Amino acid sequence: MSRPEIVTRISEDLLEGNIEGIREALSAIHPSEIAGIIQSFDPEDHTKILDALDNETASEVILELDPEQREDILEDFDEEKIADIAEEMDSDDAADLIGELPEQTASTVLSKMDPEEAKDVAPLLKYPEDSAGGIMQAELVKVNQSFTVRDTTNWIRLIAEEVEDFHSIFVTDENDKLLGQISLSKLILASPRAKVENLMEPVEVTVTPYVDQEEVAKIFQKYDIVTLPVIDTRGVLIGRITADDVLDVITEEASEDMLQMAGVGDSLHPIYTPTLTRIKLRTPWLLLTLVGELFIAFIIVYAFQPTLEKVAILAAFMPAIMATGGNVGLQTTTIVIRSLGMGSINVKQIGRIIFSEIRVGLALGVICGLIAAVIGAMISYQQPEVFRLSIAVFIAMVSATMATSFIGVAAPLVLFRLDFDPAAASGPFLTMFNDIFGSVFYLFIAMLIL
Amino acid sequence: MSRPEIVTRISEDLLEGNIEGIREALSAIHPSEIAGIIQSFDPEDHTKILDALDNETASEVILELDPEQREDILEDFDEEKIADIAEEMDSDDAADLIGELPEQTASTVLSKMDPEEAKDVAPLLKYPEDSAGGIMQAELVKVNQSFTVRDTTNWIRLIAEEVEDFHSIFVTDENDKLLGQISLSKLILASPRAKVENLMEPVEVTVTPYVDQEEVAKIFQKYDIVTLPVIDTRGVLIGRITADDVLDVITEEASEDMLQMAGVGDSLHPIYTPTLTRIKLRTPWLLLTLVGELFIAFIIVYAFQPTLEKVAILAAFMPAIMATGGNVGLQTTTIVIRSLGMGSINVKQIGRIIFSEIRVGLALGVICGLIAAVIGAMISYQQPEVFRLSIAVFIAMVSATMATSFIGVAAPLVLFRLDFDPAAASGPFLTMFNDIFGSVFYLFIAMLIL
Repeated sequence: MSRPEIVTRISEDLLEGNIEGIREALSAIHPSEIAGIIQSFDPEDHTKILDALDNETASEVILELDPEQREDILEDFDEEKIADIAEEMDSDDAADLIGELPEQTASTVLSKMDPEEAKDVAPLLKYPEDSAGGIMQAELVKVNQSFTVRDTTNWIRLIAEEVEDFHSIFVTDENDKLLGQISLSKLILASPRAKVENLMEPVEVTVTPYVDQEEVAKIFQKYDIVTLPVIDTRGVLIGRITADDVLDVITEEASEDMLQMAGVGDSLHPIYTPTLTRIKLRTPWLLLTLVGELFIAFIIVYAFQPTLEKVAILAAFMPAIMATGGNVGLQTTTIVIRSLGMGSINVKQIGRIIFSEIRVGLALGVICGLIAAVIGAMISYQQPEVFRLSIAVFIAMVSATMATSFIGVAAPLVLFRLDFDPAAASGPFLTMFNDIFGSVFYLFIAMLIL
Repeated sequence: MSRPEIVTRISEDLLEGNIEGIREALSAIHPSEIAGIIQSFDPEDHTKILDALDNETASEVILELDPEQREDILEDFDEEKIADIAEEMDSDDAADLIGELPEQTASTVLSKMDPEEAKDVAPLLKYPEDSAGGIMQAELVKVNQSFTVRDTTNWIRLIAEEVEDFHSIFVTDENDKLLGQISLSKLILASPRAKVENLMEPVEVTVTPYVDQEEVAKIFQKYDIVTLPVIDTRGVLIGRITADDVLDVITEEASEDMLQMAGVGDSLHPIYTPTLTRIKLRTPWLLLTLVGELFIAFIIVYAFQPTLEKVAILAAFMPAIMATGGNVGLQTTTIVIRSLGMGSINVKQIGRIIFSEIRVGLALGVICGLIAAVIGAMISYQQPEVFRLSIAVFIAMVSATMATSFIGVAAPLVLFRLDFDPAAASGPFLTMFNDIFGSVFYLFIAMLIL
């Protein structure tokens, strides 16, 4: 069946209250596809469709939904049902799900879960969502150093159901301290009587649970690994992070950077985030710029009104100067923020980076300034002050591009060094700074020259 | 030894020409660390340090360097040396390396490589760098459907050296057509006499080599897999893509989006990209905006000069209107581009998304417009036209935010639908559009009212 056909069939089933029919229609479809199909329906039908699925499928579908949709659906389920669904998930996903619930509901859900599963999930709830502890899962395969390969195989047989998708086996001592790891391919080739302590390889890299998830992502990229063990400060193995969790982290962090730069504040969905939330989260950044811009207006009114009255034409070139300065600054900040995000520049090179960007900014300013001066002169050739006006436009444009280059490269570097998010430097802040140069400084130069 | 100590020691070794000393100093250090250490040295020393390393370590270090640095170093090596280094790499990395060389050098390097290795690498060179074929590797473990588990283990023993880091075994028929796969954990638990065709599971998802790498990344995230088989149109297994390649793809694509939005054109390194290249790649976008902005200047000079001469103060609020409109537009585009990039919105919802964003834009415009009108009136209370001026500011601001919301949401969606990169919609283009509203439309309203 094609997707529209499935949607039609489910719509009919919903009307008829045919739960069995819905389950059947979705039986051969991948959970992430089902998540897409659900979005074609009205919110009140989402719960009905999920109710028709078995708990395992429902759990996978729920993980694929947008956070806002997930929240709506969970509100309609009772704690028993949420507990059943959480039991089907890996501990890290279950912890994320329960972490999104109101505190009261969360503890009820935990208490209704199978104690074995709850034991894995509960400790994960204490770590921040964006830390190694927040993205790790408790399910893993670990064996004592005294185990033979045969013991290990028997152990895997016992727990194969519970732990899915493992690619290496961790070796620990009596106190659960991590000693090493063995890849599955090595295990396959080893003699059944060999001891794991003789086969194991040292673990290249580990993290503690409070390490930031962005750091975790960088470790995965640096070491090209698929599993990263998480240990506590005593060296005890408490979980593992897998590559698929990191894929989500990288996407999330890159989005955060972009949204932060645009002054959006948080991940907003164009449809599912309530309008009021969107307005609330976007307004502060706009007001920040607006205050700065109205301050500019104040200065212009009180300092440059006579100049503007004499040479009204000056106003015509304000947009060009502001836009060019703004674009150059945006280019610079983006390059620096991305380079920081990808770890390809080093804060120790701060002087060299700033010097290098300002030099480029100067070159770009001279190119754009010359063009603007010449075309500006052509546009306003009938004005008596055309020559001086052109010079003011040129000087203002070069100053604006150099100033925004400087602030565009220095602000994110300084924020990064102070352990703030460099992406916060951009957007509204840069716009305001730039516009001061594009208008006030330009009029000041013009006043001096004319 | 700490990093500064290592750097000092290598500096001394370089002065003394003590190759052995360099090798020793770096012997216990991870290749990605070595890549970082190398950046502390002058370019002419990079080659010397790499020369001191064994080929395997050198190959891993080279992969961790920035493309520009890598290019410089490869220019200093002869083809023989490059061939030796490429032989140590996985076929996908070797293909990337050779693909970066001038055509003549590339074919010489291929001919000097071990024929077995060259056979794996050569076919990969024909796929675009950003396609599934460009990121896949030819090394994989495949067995015929008639194999038993014991045959499979023996086969793994034979090729374990060549194929590193595999997590599943592919099962094929006589014509190399992909039939299924077996996870290593299943293989460990199976009886040695069992047939692989009875153990294998169907492959959930495959791609053909010309699929875009962004699509590949989405598949990894959707299906939570660590390996994706690549098949040709006849179903023949030709390679596999692993999660670590995809981590790089996601980072790369997110960067591309951000740089594209900022009008940078391509990945630029603040230090290693030559200044002239940076200027060349950034200028076109700036000129694009500049032309638009100078057109605005032209309109102001010829249409609004009398208005501005009468009420020079009008110019004071141009920055505020342009900045607010610009910020709202940037917020909107960024949200839409990110949502498209993460696959969380559907182009079929185009009408709903546009309507929803314009509504938010209207609300934001009214909030900012009211504030600007009130504070604007306070700033210019001595002016005779203060009341009408405020109204003009309010109307212009609301129109600007609505217009930029519309273009900010519609432009990326339309580009996406037409199969262009939605991120190209932003930055310079949006700035220009916005500034027309922020200045020309504002002055037009003012002219009507005053």
